[in-house]
Amino acid sequence: MNEFEIIECFFKSAHPASNGGLALGIGDDAAIVNVPDDSELVISMDTLVSGVHFFADALPEDIAYKSLAVNLSDIAAMGASSRWISLSLTLPDQDLVWIEKFSSSFNQLAKEHGLVLIGGDLTKGPLSITVQIHGINPKGKSLRRSGANPGDSIYVSGKLGAAAYAFKSIEDNVLYPDATKEEIQRLHRPEARTKTGTTLRSIATSCIDISDGLFADLGHILKASKVGADIKLAEIPYSDSLKKLDKDKAIELALSGGDDYELCFTLPSGTPDAVLNELESICPIYCIGTITNQVSELSFLKENDEPYVIKTNAYRHFS
Amino acid sequence: MNEFEIIECFFKSAHPASNGGLALGIGDDAAIVNVPDDSELVISMDTLVSGVHFFADALPEDIAYKSLAVNLSDIAAMGASSRWISLSLTLPDQDLVWIEKFSSSFNQLAKEHGLVLIGGDLTKGPLSITVQIHGINPKGKSLRRSGANPGDSIYVSGKLGAAAYAFKSIEDNVLYPDATKEEIQRLHRPEARTKTGTTLRSIATSCIDISDGLFADLGHILKASKVGADIKLAEIPYSDSLKKLDKDKAIELALSGGDDYELCFTLPSGTPDAVLNELESICPIYCIGTITNQVSELSFLKENDEPYVIKTNAYRHFS
Repeated sequence: MNEFEIIECFFKSAHPASNGGLALGIGDDAAIVNVPDDSELVISMDTLVSGVHFFADALPEDIAYKSLAVNLSDIAAMGASSRWISLSLTLPDQDLVWIEKFSSSFNQLAKEHGLVLIGGDLTKGPLSITVQIHGINPKGKSLRRSGANPGDSIYVSGKLGAAAYAFKSIEDNVLYPDATKEEIQRLHRPEARTKTGTTLRSIATSCIDISDGLFADLGHILKASKVGADIKLAEIPYSDSLKKLDKDKAIELALSGGDDYELCFTLPSGTPDAVLNELESICPIYCIGTITNQVSELSFLKENDEPYVIKTNAYRHFS
Repeated sequence: MNEFEIIECFFKSAHPASNGGLALGIGDDAAIVNVPDDSELVISMDTLVSGVHFFADALPEDIAYKSLAVNLSDIAAMGASSRWISLSLTLPDQDLVWIEKFSSSFNQLAKEHGLVLIGGDLTKGPLSITVQIHGINPKGKSLRRSGANPGDSIYVSGKLGAAAYAFKSIEDNVLYPDATKEEIQRLHRPEARTKTGTTLRSIATSCIDISDGLFADLGHILKASKVGADIKLAEIPYSDSLKKLDKDKAIELALSGGDDYELCFTLPSGTPDAVLNELESICPIYCIGTITNQVSELSFLKENDEPYVIKTNAYRHFS
């Protein structure tokens, strides 16, 4: 099969242009999209490289899932609804069994989120996947990193550290034993907090998704908002996995392990209980601290309110 | 430097969010764009992989130029005006000299075309570049592959085969000797026909850019438009380079060498001379044949009107 036949067979048929308000889908030099007049367009792009962002022997179903989920997570962090995606797939060879598994998983997750694949590229080369995602929001309503104010409460959705534990366990099963199926799942198939994201749209003052670890990603909110934060270590929602480790190592993984794809967001003080309950009904949320006016100063406090010094730097995709 | 510092230093500073009607540029989970109400959004994405789409020892300036130019060419083929771009850059190591050269060339070409870089990704891995481009067109005015009608004249902008000759010459300097500087330039720095594209917007019945060779790309127009074509071999604008070859080889390179990035388009019979003159004033255009009602039948005719049988398949990026 040539490039066009593969796209036609494995991708185009699952994404009819009639879906999702498309004027023109896969199969021309470009796709054509009509963005509703009262909406702003929210655009993100993430690349996953074999051996860097996933293990070289990862399953095609998992690679597909994660490559789409991490993009969904970015749009969730903007409070937007995901709509259209482009996929650039670079493959070392034409393994139709691999492509079938990849495309089934990709198309399935896209369907679950009402996404339409509008185009992309298929090239020969070392395995990597780039997904570009388009979401929409009512004009002016997108969440940003820059809106946090002193006095705001800082929240995290879900628990932190499970994916990082699974990653470490696959790398070193002696130091990090017995990763559970659920932890492995968190690493390979992160669940983007899409519903939480759109619910936060008119509520949160800032939001980010935790891909590089809470330490680094909350740091981005502080920098963009020109504020600081006091975080209570005891309030951080540690994944159960981390109980297998000594305390310092557990804190390190929870704060800088990365790959959580939970949302970190700020809510004004006095946010009504009804709002918190609505958020809680979607997924657990945890208040971990408070925004301060100490610009870019991120303080972690032990239970006795003494400062705790982080021992590692955040995870970096490029170093 | 970490990922964020590299983006800040080499890319973000050259693309202020205040340009191009952006609501939010580089530096959040996603960019935010306001598409004008009377416009449709035209979206394309192309990936270039080292050793596949460019030589492994290609200059970073040339790689940057080509990775952007091929995307500009897609938007030109839709008759649209390019506006916003995202760049995913995968690099084997952190070579700041390489990155500086790449980014200078990329930012310069973007500036020349009024483009703003709105985001993307920077990852570690085998060298590859994915560019996603957004253009806009007045609603309903985008050119497509599907509008050609029997009786339309078929045109090509510029001359064909120079880039393919340069490619062959770099691979085999004996069979394909003496590639000129200009031919090499056509391969490394193709000129997207952006002005021709926007001028064709309200004139052409169909359009495509020639990336895989005239044979394959005109074939896409025929398939999408459910028509055929008679092409006069003698009217094809062969690049001067091809005079170095015997006739069959020259025709093969001109028709299926690829990497031309000229536009192939159809105009209704009776298109006024004034329109043709306007197009001619931008870049040379050549009428090479006529659309027929023989669905998907692409016939090449020799000077004596006898059929000519093409000896090769079109260039395939993935096989």
